Amino acid sequence: MSATQSLARYVVESDYAAIPSDVRAEAKRALLNYLGCALGGSTEPALDVAIRVLLPYSGRPTATVIGRRERFDPLNAALLNGIGSHVHEYDDTTPKNYIHPSVPVASALFAYASAERVSGEDFVHAFILGFEAESRIGDAVYPAHYEAGWHITSTAGVFGSAAAIGKLRGLTVEQMVWAFGLAATQAAGIREMFGSMAKSFQPGRAAQNGYTAALLAEANFTAGERGLEGPRGFAAVTAARYDLGKITERLGDDFSLRVNAYKPYACGLVVHPTIDGCSRIRERDKPDPARIRAIRLRVAPLVLDLCNQKDLKRALQTKYSIYHAAAIGLARGKGGLAEFTDEALDDPVLARLRSITTATGDPAVGEDQVHIEVELDDGRLLELFVEESLGNLGRPLSDAQLEEKFRDQAVRVLAPARVDALIAQCWRIDELEDAGELARAAALSDADGAAERVAAQ
Amino acid sequence: MSATQSLARYVVESDYAAIPSDVRAEAKRALLNYLGCALGGSTEPALDVAIRVLLPYSGRPTATVIGRRERFDPLNAALLNGIGSHVHEYDDTTPKNYIHPSVPVASALFAYASAERVSGEDFVHAFILGFEAESRIGDAVYPAHYEAGWHITSTAGVFGSAAAIGKLRGLTVEQMVWAFGLAATQAAGIREMFGSMAKSFQPGRAAQNGYTAALLAEANFTAGERGLEGPRGFAAVTAARYDLGKITERLGDDFSLRVNAYKPYACGLVVHPTIDGCSRIRERDKPDPARIRAIRLRVAPLVLDLCNQKDLKRALQTKYSIYHAAAIGLARGKGGLAEFTDEALDDPVLARLRSITTATGDPAVGEDQVHIEVELDDGRLLELFVEESLGNLGRPLSDAQLEEKFRDQAVRVLAPARVDALIAQCWRIDELEDAGELARAAALSDADGAAERVAAQ
Repeated sequence: MSATQSLARYVVESDYAAIPSDVRAEAKRALLNYLGCALGGSTEPALDVAIRVLLPYSGRPTATVIGRRERFDPLNAALLNGIGSHVHEYDDTTPKNYIHPSVPVASALFAYASAERVSGEDFVHAFILGFEAESRIGDAVYPAHYEAGWHITSTAGVFGSAAAIGKLRGLTVEQMVWAFGLAATQAAGIREMFGSMAKSFQPGRAAQNGYTAALLAEANFTAGERGLEGPRGFAAVTAARYDLGKITERLGDDFSLRVNAYKPYACGLVVHPTIDGCSRIRERDKPDPARIRAIRLRVAPLVLDLCNQKDLKRALQTKYSIYHAAAIGLARGKGGLAEFTDEALDDPVLARLRSITTATGDPAVGEDQVHIEVELDDGRLLELFVEESLGNLGRPLSDAQLEEKFRDQAVRVLAPARVDALIAQCWRIDELEDAGELARAAALSDADGAAERVAAQ
Repeated sequence: MSATQSLARYVVESDYAAIPSDVRAEAKRALLNYLGCALGGSTEPALDVAIRVLLPYSGRPTATVIGRRERFDPLNAALLNGIGSHVHEYDDTTPKNYIHPSVPVASALFAYASAERVSGEDFVHAFILGFEAESRIGDAVYPAHYEAGWHITSTAGVFGSAAAIGKLRGLTVEQMVWAFGLAATQAAGIREMFGSMAKSFQPGRAAQNGYTAALLAEANFTAGERGLEGPRGFAAVTAARYDLGKITERLGDDFSLRVNAYKPYACGLVVHPTIDGCSRIRERDKPDPARIRAIRLRVAPLVLDLCNQKDLKRALQTKYSIYHAAAIGLARGKGGLAEFTDEALDDPVLARLRSITTATGDPAVGEDQVHIEVELDDGRLLELFVEESLGNLGRPLSDAQLEEKFRDQAVRVLAPARVDALIAQCWRIDELEDAGELARAAALSDADGAAERVAAQ
């Protein structure tokens, strides 16, 4: 059986009872993390603009967009959920292939569930299968595909969305094969767009396109049957080297959700160890920021290549400054969205700490490590070596840390009590009779008192 | 200036007065050919299914779909126009890069004009610029891009649609650069889908995605500024070899419309010389099909590789049978849509002619050539050598032949008088105050007496 056929058959025939309990639990962690990111990004200009442009083209407004008041048809809602949840680049990552896997799948599923009835169990099941399909297809073409310049989150993600929605729609194996073909022929997104709004548009479009692929296939809109492995299929066309065996190897036994990682900080990955270590010094030694005389960092040379910015002018630059990373760790003990705003940029405490920080490159230090030395004005030295940064697979965020990350983002648009209720609902999503309850609870309504947003034309 | 920047500037600053008159005239021929193909494909199952699936997701139904009664928002209408106009593979081709160039551009433009006011002159101008943008981008990556397996009609076409709609929307150069970036990051479509409904979906999606790119860019949705030439841009990511110089070389002086070709027959290209030659024998010698004893063809070996089917079971196979090609040429003198239907398959006259046809491969015969020998029952031999097949650049279809092709397709959905009126309107599209008149005249309304179609939902 071909890779396309095997994967289609697995998705169609998968039974929720056969999904191991640790995978189900990890799925809920991923969904909680996803939903928090979508709320955190829901006020961003990229989403405002897309909503304003697309509202006149939306079908019957039966679906919600996470964190927003506007209503759209489910296909457009999938796109918009994708933009909002990826725009801060705070969403999850599978380090083995650099995919941000939840966005394309969950963006389609939340749009779907907000408009069509689906049980919580089916929702989680579809999420796990979509996650698995995109991860395995990504594994098959990584790293050649990514190195060529493809934004693998969107190119692989479109298959994940097709698998998830296709599962909910009850496609036959033949239809699922067509859905994968229609996904393959819509797979797009290039890394040249990084640093612009088009970046977050890509996984959103993948969510929308995969969803469309499933709907068309359900109606017997035919596609080539060898979308993945054919001589002019996805793998051959987009990767100089690939291994289709990774699509089917231990399918149903190994699950990529087990190797999913969640960013603890809303910024570039290579400054994570410094925020982590400085936060731990703050917690351990409780230094008064005003009494700190100097901060000395020894980091991997790559960190200085990427993040050697001290003279910061725009909030966005704070996400890529090793000096700002040390400052927020020591002064605030965190690196949430609030730590990378204009307010944080202008905070005099942070500005002083940045100015007394020095960093030297050391090839012996890993990209995931840092040596930190904090000198107080009484001459005392606080030292710490971070061997593996928080959020990595070896030191995953705890459920409590995921909740804190969620809260940090969600309170920007929702009242605290409602945030707590959403978190609780997220942990028991698989018990909900209608997953749409959660999807709709994560959106705003006209009754909500939150700040006014872009008005519908 | 970069290729993206130069092309954007050219499109934004182009003045209709600077477009040579032969190019304007060829644009009208291309539009007539396009519109005929869209009418010819408007009753195909691929379009029926897509319409049924997408109707519930359509926004305000302000736009028409060519040959159809249903109304959609303009973005969905662009997609559907694309499916209908490409589904018979009867649309135009630029032989230098194998792009079918009109579909992605005109599908977006007819959808746009049906809903938004645009003068005929602006419509034709936008069409010429979109055609030129996609052709030049295609030239830059051809042939490596096509050989890799990309369906170049859709991957290059999305830029054409973005350029055309962007021109009508009056984008600034910066916005046009973003539109090209958003097009680059949506460029998709693989040849593995050939032979399925997904094939015609691709240029439709390109029309819709390019249109969306222009709308987003107009609202300052940002994208990477080096979508074409960046190290992770369209050319580098999708082609092993490319020449960006082709995007800007003699821009404004050379026009790809001058090397556009129109298929005279609704079937595989390599059987075109045989239909052409047999039709000429029919016209020249007027042989009674019943008196033909044998038909002997000498063709390029490739023709037998691709089209050596005599025992035909399905109508689709007739498009790829050298024997059927000889039969319809001699019996009917044409190869329109009607010559490749179940009716044609079952026609006893054609069946007999197929059965007495033989073909031999000869490496001395070009793919565009054929030696034909027809033996009558009185022993007389009718011979003809086709040196260059009808429809090629050296023997382009005349305006009258284009009109006949249009009529042949349009009468399937419209009354003859209306077909004539449409043809007349097409030839003077650049004089129309509102190009939407033509777009709307090419759609059906509830008042039309044509056969019932797919009902909404």
